[in-house]
Amino acid sequence: MSLHDEIHEQPAVARRLITEQRPVIERIARALSGRPIDLVVIAARGSSDHAAIYGQYLFGAFERLPVALATPALTSVYGVVPRLERALVIGISQSGRSPDVVGVIAGARGQGGATIAITNAADSPLAEAAEHVIDVAAGPERAVAATKTYTAQLIAIALLATAIGEGSAGAIGGSTADRWAALAALPDAMAEALGTEDTVASIARERAALDRCIVLGRGFDYATAREWALKLKELAQVGADPYSAADFMHGPMALVEPDYPVLAIAASGAVLPGMRELLERLRDQYRVDLVTVSDDPAVRAIGSAGLAIPRVAEWLSPVVSILPAQLFAYHVTQGRGLDAEHPRWISKVTLTH
Amino acid sequence: MSLHDEIHEQPAVARRLITEQRPVIERIARALSGRPIDLVVIAARGSSDHAAIYGQYLFGAFERLPVALATPALTSVYGVVPRLERALVIGISQSGRSPDVVGVIAGARGQGGATIAITNAADSPLAEAAEHVIDVAAGPERAVAATKTYTAQLIAIALLATAIGEGSAGAIGGSTADRWAALAALPDAMAEALGTEDTVASIARERAALDRCIVLGRGFDYATAREWALKLKELAQVGADPYSAADFMHGPMALVEPDYPVLAIAASGAVLPGMRELLERLRDQYRVDLVTVSDDPAVRAIGSAGLAIPRVAEWLSPVVSILPAQLFAYHVTQGRGLDAEHPRWISKVTLTH
Repeated sequence: MSLHDEIHEQPAVARRLITEQRPVIERIARALSGRPIDLVVIAARGSSDHAAIYGQYLFGAFERLPVALATPALTSVYGVVPRLERALVIGISQSGRSPDVVGVIAGARGQGGATIAITNAADSPLAEAAEHVIDVAAGPERAVAATKTYTAQLIAIALLATAIGEGSAGAIGGSTADRWAALAALPDAMAEALGTEDTVASIARERAALDRCIVLGRGFDYATAREWALKLKELAQVGADPYSAADFMHGPMALVEPDYPVLAIAASGAVLPGMRELLERLRDQYRVDLVTVSDDPAVRAIGSAGLAIPRVAEWLSPVVSILPAQLFAYHVTQGRGLDAEHPRWISKVTLTH
Repeated sequence: MSLHDEIHEQPAVARRLITEQRPVIERIARALSGRPIDLVVIAARGSSDHAAIYGQYLFGAFERLPVALATPALTSVYGVVPRLERALVIGISQSGRSPDVVGVIAGARGQGGATIAITNAADSPLAEAAEHVIDVAAGPERAVAATKTYTAQLIAIALLATAIGEGSAGAIGGSTADRWAALAALPDAMAEALGTEDTVASIARERAALDRCIVLGRGFDYATAREWALKLKELAQVGADPYSAADFMHGPMALVEPDYPVLAIAASGAVLPGMRELLERLRDQYRVDLVTVSDDPAVRAIGSAGLAIPRVAEWLSPVVSILPAQLFAYHVTQGRGLDAEHPRWISKVTLTH
């Protein structure tokens, strides 16, 4: 299995995950329903941390829960275990072997906090440490760069937020039935997004000389901006710098100049008007080289190139919008003559403390 | 007043803040002491967001409270107000005019959550929205890039965490008396750090051709890495990429190659052994061009250049370690012939929604 195979495996992984794990996750949601939960804390590193950022927005949107991303160094370096009795604590790790992530979960469970592991290794230390386990069952991921385990983690979070949010239907995502239906439609949308590979490849090959760029996203797709930038760094050695559109305007915008490469995710939904305004300004005032990911042809036309995705529910956009971004990073890497399977200096499992 | 003047004003601002605001902050801490607080939520943008990251570690270390950095887009874009009845919600903004930060505070106060504004504008919308106000009283900041308001925000957070933590003395920072004493010693240490400007200037001028770099910090000084990178971006147009040392090893390390510029903050304390190991590896295996900020001469000697700071309590390190970093960014900017007072494209007050 190569990185390229793993990218294309994602719709099948998603289909299996949604079918097989929904009952497991609904059981977890029922077990949690009696507990006083005031906040969610998510511990993760690397790509899993971008799934955590997605969770930060989604648990906020569906459950109105404040979500803290754990600072594992507090425990592993300074020896402090935060008070987490009234928290739902989620550890996300592909390998389940990151000692600092395991440490946060073990500390929380010791205090009686609710704990869930989201992992691709059901027999890992993380799965052992947590009270509940969601096995994303993506199959072995051999490439160093995470792809199918990342989208599987996103889907696990979406399933969990939907199951916990039973009855809390709101403006975002509609009724609970709408949310489950949107999830069920996801694998086909993912396959459609991956079907654009030829176009993505030619846009990416034209940018094989890319050595730095800015990556913009907002709301749910801020996670996508972070993950796209990480793929470009680890695979293609591109100095890609991700921002939420709002933070970008608070300083880093000083970096751009004519032809500066800017990548942006701008899917339909509440964030689109603001994103569109910023993208038009980047084109008209600063004349950057803009590549967009969008389901909206008019938005794709703002930039010098556009990567098409099908339209899905806004809260599920990150699961689909990352797919052309992964392909883009893969083909920039190929275009640069680098080894996409074995990025230099890094290993599949990084045991940070 | 120029940016350079404002940098050098910081010890005086700190001295005034510590003297004048301590009673105000102790009053706020008493007012909060009867409330059930399970978590802290901090809303901020730009440099203020780096002060928020410092708060994330410090409230964790002193109060054992989980700290969430607010995602203002949830409220301003998606219309969701998270449940914050049992939260202490802090808004940090120099101007007090960022609508998205004001929105988080107003939403929390409407639910009966405890709210505090940390601002340089005591008559701003943010100060009006919050129940309690800490006026950092840094005087007008005319340069677009924040310097004295950033260190003042850090100190306001340190004062608040110390006042709230009365009686919760622990391994970090020692007794409450030790903590107040460490705060009182800060202005002199800041003046000493700024006294190294000639050395910093010559190291920075040698790197005027810098166009990208990685900035590493960990624990409390992760905030410093973020803020240093932002100064380099907005002032000197350097594509500076900040990481916690742990996250760096989960992928972005693939970017480095011989002579790649790496800046690192490595002050004495619990994070130093891990930082030292990483820095030695970067030197020995990858032969990067390493510039360190440290109070430890042996750590400064690991790199090709070292910026000296005096030793302060580890939890206060960010207040001092950012000072040579600001000077470094200033002199790189001068060396590149750019205007440090008016960075291109950005304005002092950014009204993001």
